[in-house]
Amino acid sequence: MTYTRRMVNLKNVTSDGVGTAGLDWPNALEQHASRLEAARDAILQRHASGQDPYLGWIDLPDGEVLGEVQALAAQYAGEFDDLVVLGIGGSSLGGLTVLTALQHPYHNLMRERPALRVHFIDNVDGDVITGLLEVLDPARTLVNVISKSGTTTETMAAYLTCKAWLQQHVGEGYARQIIATTDPQKGILRPLAQREGYATLPVPPNVGGRFSVLSAVGLLPAALGGVDVEALLRGARRANEAFRAGAHDNAILQTALVNWLAGEAGRNILVFMPYSTRLRYLSDWFAQLWAESLGKHKPGGGHTGTTPVKAVGTTDQHSQVQLYREGPSDKLVVFVRVDAPDRDARIPNAEPNEPEMNYLADAPYGRLMNAELVATAHALAQAGQMNYTLSLERIDAEQLGHLLQFLMLQTAVVGELLGINAFDQPGVELGKVLTYALMGRPGFDQQREELRAAGVQVD
Amino acid sequence: MTYTRRMVNLKNVTSDGVGTAGLDWPNALEQHASRLEAARDAILQRHASGQDPYLGWIDLPDGEVLGEVQALAAQYAGEFDDLVVLGIGGSSLGGLTVLTALQHPYHNLMRERPALRVHFIDNVDGDVITGLLEVLDPARTLVNVISKSGTTTETMAAYLTCKAWLQQHVGEGYARQIIATTDPQKGILRPLAQREGYATLPVPPNVGGRFSVLSAVGLLPAALGGVDVEALLRGARRANEAFRAGAHDNAILQTALVNWLAGEAGRNILVFMPYSTRLRYLSDWFAQLWAESLGKHKPGGGHTGTTPVKAVGTTDQHSQVQLYREGPSDKLVVFVRVDAPDRDARIPNAEPNEPEMNYLADAPYGRLMNAELVATAHALAQAGQMNYTLSLERIDAEQLGHLLQFLMLQTAVVGELLGINAFDQPGVELGKVLTYALMGRPGFDQQREELRAAGVQVD
Repeated sequence: MTYTRRMVNLKNVTSDGVGTAGLDWPNALEQHASRLEAARDAILQRHASGQDPYLGWIDLPDGEVLGEVQALAAQYAGEFDDLVVLGIGGSSLGGLTVLTALQHPYHNLMRERPALRVHFIDNVDGDVITGLLEVLDPARTLVNVISKSGTTTETMAAYLTCKAWLQQHVGEGYARQIIATTDPQKGILRPLAQREGYATLPVPPNVGGRFSVLSAVGLLPAALGGVDVEALLRGARRANEAFRAGAHDNAILQTALVNWLAGEAGRNILVFMPYSTRLRYLSDWFAQLWAESLGKHKPGGGHTGTTPVKAVGTTDQHSQVQLYREGPSDKLVVFVRVDAPDRDARIPNAEPNEPEMNYLADAPYGRLMNAELVATAHALAQAGQMNYTLSLERIDAEQLGHLLQFLMLQTAVVGELLGINAFDQPGVELGKVLTYALMGRPGFDQQREELRAAGVQVD
Repeated sequence: MTYTRRMVNLKNVTSDGVGTAGLDWPNALEQHASRLEAARDAILQRHASGQDPYLGWIDLPDGEVLGEVQALAAQYAGEFDDLVVLGIGGSSLGGLTVLTALQHPYHNLMRERPALRVHFIDNVDGDVITGLLEVLDPARTLVNVISKSGTTTETMAAYLTCKAWLQQHVGEGYARQIIATTDPQKGILRPLAQREGYATLPVPPNVGGRFSVLSAVGLLPAALGGVDVEALLRGARRANEAFRAGAHDNAILQTALVNWLAGEAGRNILVFMPYSTRLRYLSDWFAQLWAESLGKHKPGGGHTGTTPVKAVGTTDQHSQVQLYREGPSDKLVVFVRVDAPDRDARIPNAEPNEPEMNYLADAPYGRLMNAELVATAHALAQAGQMNYTLSLERIDAEQLGHLLQFLMLQTAVVGELLGINAFDQPGVELGKVLTYALMGRPGFDQQREELRAAGVQVD
C-alpha cells in the first residue's frame, strides 16, 4: 500500500484487518482513484477561480491576517489576565480545540501563567455567564466578540452582558477592552464596532464558521493564550501541499474515500476518538465540521450525513467500547494517536509488593496509552467494527495545524463525493426564525401564529 | 394522555407532532402497557429476592452509606483545598456530573471557595496527570482512589503516581490523605488500603460502575465538593416510588417504551441534549449508562444497542442541528429542559440604538434558552426527527438525583424489553487482555503471540 504509513493506518478498514466486513483494499482505492482526484480537482479549480463563495479557508494557512493578529496580541499581552471569547459553534470550537491541546493542561489554575486565561461563552446559560463574570477582574479582562454577521442571538446576548459589565466597572475605557471579529464589510457588528471604537479583525466573507479556525476567529484567542500561531499555519500549509498528490499517495483522499464508503455501506455513525485528554475538543470541533457540512438534503431527494460521535480514549473504553464491540456494526471509528507525549512521565513503582501492579512499574504513560489504543483497535476489528488510526508525532502547533487542515480538506472531498454543498447550513434557519418568534421579535408574528396553531406554548 | 405532563413532553414522538414517522399514541402505550409493567415487575421481583447480583443500585437512595460519607467529609473539610479523584468510566462520570451541575460554574477559579476543588484523573495521559500535580499543594490535597476490583489499569497507574507524589512531598503522613472506595471484601485494593492505613468506603458488590453514582463512589466527591447529598438521595427515592405506578402514569416506563420502539424502528442513534451548560456531563454519564448497558450480543444471535450522542443546547444547535434537520431520520433526540435558572439573569439593553438587538433587551436568559429548545424541538419534528423533552423545575440536588435514578430505571427497563443483561460488560474484556499483552504483563504471552501473528507491532 502506498498511502503515507506514518500518518494513517488503514489496516482495520480492510478485509485484511476486519474480515468480510472490510474493504477490498487496495482494489477499492484503484477503483475510485480517478473519482477522488476529480473531486480534489473540482475543489482546487473552484478555489483557483477566485469566484467561489466558500473556499476561502484554503488560503488561510498563508496567513494574510497573521501580522494583524500578532500585533494586536502583543499590544494586549501583559496588560490583561483573562480573555473572554463570545462565540458559538465555529466561532468557539476552533479556539477551544487549539488552546486545550496546546496550553498547559491546567493553565488556568497555575499561579504564574505564561499567557492569558481564555474562557468561552458559547451558550445562553445565564447562571454560567454571570458566574464567570463574578470570578474575573473587569479591569484585567479582554472581550473578543466573534460573529460574522453580528446577528447570532447567543453571541449578541453575551456581548450585551459583557459590554454592560465592562461599562459598569471600568467606565469610559470599556471600548479599549473589546475586540470584534466580524465580516469586513457586511453585517451589523462591523459598523457597531467602528462607532464604539473597538479594535476589529476580519472573518473573510468566503470562510464559513466551521472552517474558520485558522482565520482571526481562532488565531487571536490562540495567540493571546500563548500558542505559536505561525507553526499552526505552517502545519496547515503542509496539508494543503499534500492534498495535491495523486490518490495513491494522498491520505486525505484515501480517508475521505473510507469515510464515504462506510456511509454508503450503511454505517451511519462516525466515531472520532483521540487517545489524548488534550485533544478532547478536537472531537467537538470535528463533530461540527462533519455534521454541519455533510448532513444535507440530497439534490434530487433523500438525505446525506453520517452522525459524528465524540469520544476520548482511553476514557471512553470504560463507557462506549462495550457497545462498539458487541453492538451493531453500524460504525466507522477514527482513532487519533499521539506517538510521543511532551513529558517522559512514567508510572512509579510505588507498590513493589503488589504483584497485580508490577507490570505497570516504570512504564512510560505514553506506552500504556498507545497499547490501549492498539488493543482497542484490534478488539473492534475482531468484532467487525471498521476503524483506522491517524497519527501525530506529538501534540504541537504544527502537527495540530496539519491535522485541522487535513480534516477540513477531507470533509470537502466527501462533500464532493456526495454531490452536495458542504459549505452552507440551510437547516438551522427554521430554528432561528422560531426562536425570534418565541422571543416576540417584530416581524415574526406569522411564525408565532403557526407555533400557536401547532399547540406550542408561545408565552 | 396521562403521562406526567410536568416532567415529560412526548408530543414530538407521536404522529401528532412528527407526522407519519411518529408513534400512534396513546395506542402504542395501550398495546405495550402490560409488557412494560411486566418488565418493571421482573426488575422489582429480582431485586426483592435479595439474590440478584446486579440490582443493588435500587437501594442506594436509601442512603445506607450516607452517615459514613458525611462523617468522612466533615473530618476532612477545612483541612484540604483539593480532592483528586482517581477513577474512570462509572467511577468518575457520576461525581463529575453532580459537581458540574451543582457547584458554582466557575468554582475552581473563585478566590474564596465554599468547598474543595475536585479534579478527576480519568485517563492515562501522563502530560495531563503531571500537569495537574504541578498546580496542587500536596499538603492540602486529598486523593480518592475508586476501583471496585483494584485492577483497573488506568486507575492503578494514577494511584501509583499520586501515592509516590504524596510520599515524596508529605512523607509518612501520606496515608492520611488517601481514601480508597472499593469492594468491601473482594479485590486487591481493600487489603492494600488496610495495610497502608487508608480510610475506606464501600462499593456494594451488587452495584456496577455505571449505576454507582449514588453510592460512596459519587457521594464522597459530591460531599467534599459541597453538594447536598441528602437531597440528591431524596430525589432518587422519589423516582423509585414513581417507578411503581402503572404504565399510564409512569414516565419512566413510557420513555423506556419510546426509546425502545425508536430503536426497533431502525433509529439507531439516541441524542441526549440538555439545554444547560451545567448539565453537559449528564450527557457523558448517560452515554455510558446507555451504551454499556444496552450494547450487547443478543441471546440467540444478533446485536442490540442504539448509539448515544452527547450534545448540549443551545451550543450544538450551531454544530449538530443542521444534520439533525436535513440528514437521515435515524435519530431519537431527548431534550432536557430546566424550567427556572438559579439566578434571574437578564440580557441588558446595552445597545439601545441597535434595532437588530432590541428583541433581546431585558429578556431573561432562561426565557431565551427555553425558546431555543422549543424552537429546535419543533423544527426537528417538522423534519420527521422524533424528540421528547424531560423537564427539571430547576437544577438542584433533589431534582438531579431524581433524574439520575429515573434514567437508570429507564435503562433497566429497556434492557428487559430487549431481553438482555443490562448489567454486565463482557465486551470490554478483550481490550483489557490485549493491553496486558502489549504491556508485557506475565501470563499473557499467548495473546502477545496472537497479536504479533495478526501483524500488530507489539514492542
